[in-house]
Amino acid sequence: VVDHAEFLHQVPDEALQEVLPAAKKIALALDCKDYNLLQNNGKLAHQAVGHVHFHLIPKLEDQGLHIKWQPLQTTSQQLEQLYKKLLSKQ
Amino acid sequence: VVDHAEFLHQVPDEALQEVLPAAKKIALALDCKDYNLLQNNGKLAHQAVGHVHFHLIPKLEDQGLHIKWQPLQTTSQQLEQLYKKLLSKQ
Repeated sequence: VVDHAEFLHQVPDEALQEVLPAAKKIALALDCKDYNLLQNNGKLAHQAVGHVHFHLIPKLEDQGLHIKWQPLQTTSQQLEQLYKKLLSKQ
Repeated sequence: VVDHAEFLHQVPDEALQEVLPAAKKIALALDCKDYNLLQNNGKLAHQAVGHVHFHLIPKLEDQGLHIKWQPLQTTSQQLEQLYKKLLSKQ
């Protein structure tokens, strides 16, 4: 039971656990075949309101979320280093 | 404990509850200030692999997720109708 958080990583786990089952309910009720779930953190990442919130966006042919995303190039070695770094921070 | 689901709305709640706390851990470990969490359902919605998965995308000035999204126009009345429709399907 938290009053407010600006970013996902500030939300207590108990509250986080409630979100996706609720999103699932909404998706089922909307009965939309294609949809995106989007949660933005920080102004750079398109967060326009300073409260954690999730967008469930039905996707039709010409409506909904359009994405442009160029993943960085990487190597197995770099991924392994990142994996170890993440593990070390658990 | 589910073996496979293609879409978010097919995943049992018990499995869904584990996702966001894990994403939070990764965000904290990456220590990126700005980031997007994105989950796509259906080919129209940019889902490229037929298994439920989440993208945690660090956002830098010129890297990461770019979004183009034109929300539909609506009215308070239409929103209220949608709200009632969703409630009736609970």
